[in-house]
Amino acid sequence: MSTLQSALARIKPVSVSRMQEVQAHIDCQTKPQGSLGRLEEIARRYVAATGRKDIRKKTVFTFAGDHGVAEEGVSAFPREVTTQMVLNFLAGGAGINALARHAGAEVLVVDMGVDHDFGPLEGLLDRKVGHGTANLAEGPAMSRQQALQCLEAGIELAAVCAKQGVDLVGTGDMGIANTTPSAAIVAAFTGVDPARVTFRGTGIDDTALAHKIEVITRSLQINRPDPRDPVDVLGKVGGFEIGGIAGLIIGCAAEGIPVVVDGFISTAGALIASELHPHVRDYLFSAHRSVEIGHTLMLEHLGLEPLLDLQMRLGEGTGAALGMTLVEAALRALREIKTFAEAGVSEGTDQ
Amino acid sequence: MSTLQSALARIKPVSVSRMQEVQAHIDCQTKPQGSLGRLEEIARRYVAATGRKDIRKKTVFTFAGDHGVAEEGVSAFPREVTTQMVLNFLAGGAGINALARHAGAEVLVVDMGVDHDFGPLEGLLDRKVGHGTANLAEGPAMSRQQALQCLEAGIELAAVCAKQGVDLVGTGDMGIANTTPSAAIVAAFTGVDPARVTFRGTGIDDTALAHKIEVITRSLQINRPDPRDPVDVLGKVGGFEIGGIAGLIIGCAAEGIPVVVDGFISTAGALIASELHPHVRDYLFSAHRSVEIGHTLMLEHLGLEPLLDLQMRLGEGTGAALGMTLVEAALRALREIKTFAEAGVSEGTDQ
Repeated sequence: MSTLQSALARIKPVSVSRMQEVQAHIDCQTKPQGSLGRLEEIARRYVAATGRKDIRKKTVFTFAGDHGVAEEGVSAFPREVTTQMVLNFLAGGAGINALARHAGAEVLVVDMGVDHDFGPLEGLLDRKVGHGTANLAEGPAMSRQQALQCLEAGIELAAVCAKQGVDLVGTGDMGIANTTPSAAIVAAFTGVDPARVTFRGTGIDDTALAHKIEVITRSLQINRPDPRDPVDVLGKVGGFEIGGIAGLIIGCAAEGIPVVVDGFISTAGALIASELHPHVRDYLFSAHRSVEIGHTLMLEHLGLEPLLDLQMRLGEGTGAALGMTLVEAALRALREIKTFAEAGVSEGTDQ
Repeated sequence: MSTLQSALARIKPVSVSRMQEVQAHIDCQTKPQGSLGRLEEIARRYVAATGRKDIRKKTVFTFAGDHGVAEEGVSAFPREVTTQMVLNFLAGGAGINALARHAGAEVLVVDMGVDHDFGPLEGLLDRKVGHGTANLAEGPAMSRQQALQCLEAGIELAAVCAKQGVDLVGTGDMGIANTTPSAAIVAAFTGVDPARVTFRGTGIDDTALAHKIEVITRSLQINRPDPRDPVDVLGKVGGFEIGGIAGLIIGCAAEGIPVVVDGFISTAGALIASELHPHVRDYLFSAHRSVEIGHTLMLEHLGLEPLLDLQMRLGEGTGAALGMTLVEAALRALREIKTFAEAGVSEGTDQ
């Protein structure tokens, strides 16, 4: 059995009875029933997935890759920024570094396919599948074999997390032009018009946006990705870092490690993963609602409601890092709020 | 000049030019312009208010008081729960204790008017104005003198914060039946029908909700609070803990200390404060959108957009504690993300 098939075979639905047990305990805590809202949902889902009430270690994986479609002028930034930002991550100077330090999470940077040879660098995981994808507006972004290689790289990273006691994983991305394949992926799975899911990425103007929609439309016409075959979708209109994210999510679901999914690009990866196995969703938290207009449709397709809406659109895993702090908050409330009986507080009439 | 008049006289609008300077720096950081969304807004507002980029100490004040209107059966919990929960706060076993520990904030519990004599207790600040308010459905909740006493107690707590290096304050409340005066306050200031701003509090049923609306309507008819005189509104249909919150907010604005305002009850206090001085708002962050239906109208009246929407309705300062973590995140991003020049990253074409 392949690494992918083996991981998919190990994904189990989370225990509904364990979720009910956790909620029953929460309902005895000294507060009106349900009054911690989504923190209660986070707590019961986390415990049901892991059997744990605390987090030993948190890791954000920032997957980086370049995109042939950048040559179409779909991004406000030049292609070399992918390489420059990887170096910025390693030096600790980017948004994800600041917000992961805030969250008490480690950042691991994974080179899935940046168009630069970094050589050995402290903190960089080399999983390079190629020097950037091909231009998806002219043909497949990558081969099926490369798509599988991306997924397996992510699955293997999850296995390392399980060995090292990582109890919460965050996803992140870096890749100039990568909102284009992400929009193509959601359009491929849902069949909606690309204009409904395509937006400004890092900040393109109206003319560039119209061109980006045309590029995505062309990519779907030329490649005809099969929505019943998620590996085909990833290969034809995806990206190396998106494949790494999808693989990490599948691997974490197989290992029983919950994943906080960042914004638009990470959720494209989550879509591929959840189309490969429906119970992947049991292990996912959506960190935040991205400004990208296609994100809401992705979330509806996944059945996930984001935790935060702070008008962010940076990627890198920045939303995931903030989302991780809410998981910590939810577990702390679960562990530390006393019950009515413990605290000697009278219960309400409707309790 | 009274303590209140003196505090109001010291409230200054925050510096617009300092806000622009902060945003100009953020726009040079290695990320697409505006891509950290509301974290950028938090950072520029915090720095404009304080001149600081870091927080030395964070404190959540949980103000407690009892309410004569509880005898009308407007709450799902018995009145003695106010006292029991104060003891739970002091023992560290309530929601606010858990979430303040998560946020790295101290919790100070202030007895503004609980119907119990605690005597000296470690961690409890005695600012008792009375043993619970009178029933506002039958007459004024308190005298004008008591309303002023509540405001001055809060103002004096802010002065202590300034001396002790508290750079971020959170508000919180405990008081069985206190969604009733809060709804009455927003109805008094906006003139809307009480039915539009009255909800289930800790969890009352439809019959009790209809009665609660009737009680609030009656309180406004009997007392005729003058919306142009916020002290009159506080005295006639408010609560001791709501007055403490309003005073703390006024005092913090006078001292230049930003305040993270919790949910429905705390925002009722913020309304009174901002009606006393419009530039109070410059120092406020709304932590979260409460489930209480009147909260949104309060926020519109204040011109504040909440940071979180986690379907919470616990009070105590729990939302404020979570909101404080976002202020910390915003300041960390401001301090730690390198500029394009520092990191050697190319800028975008639209930058």
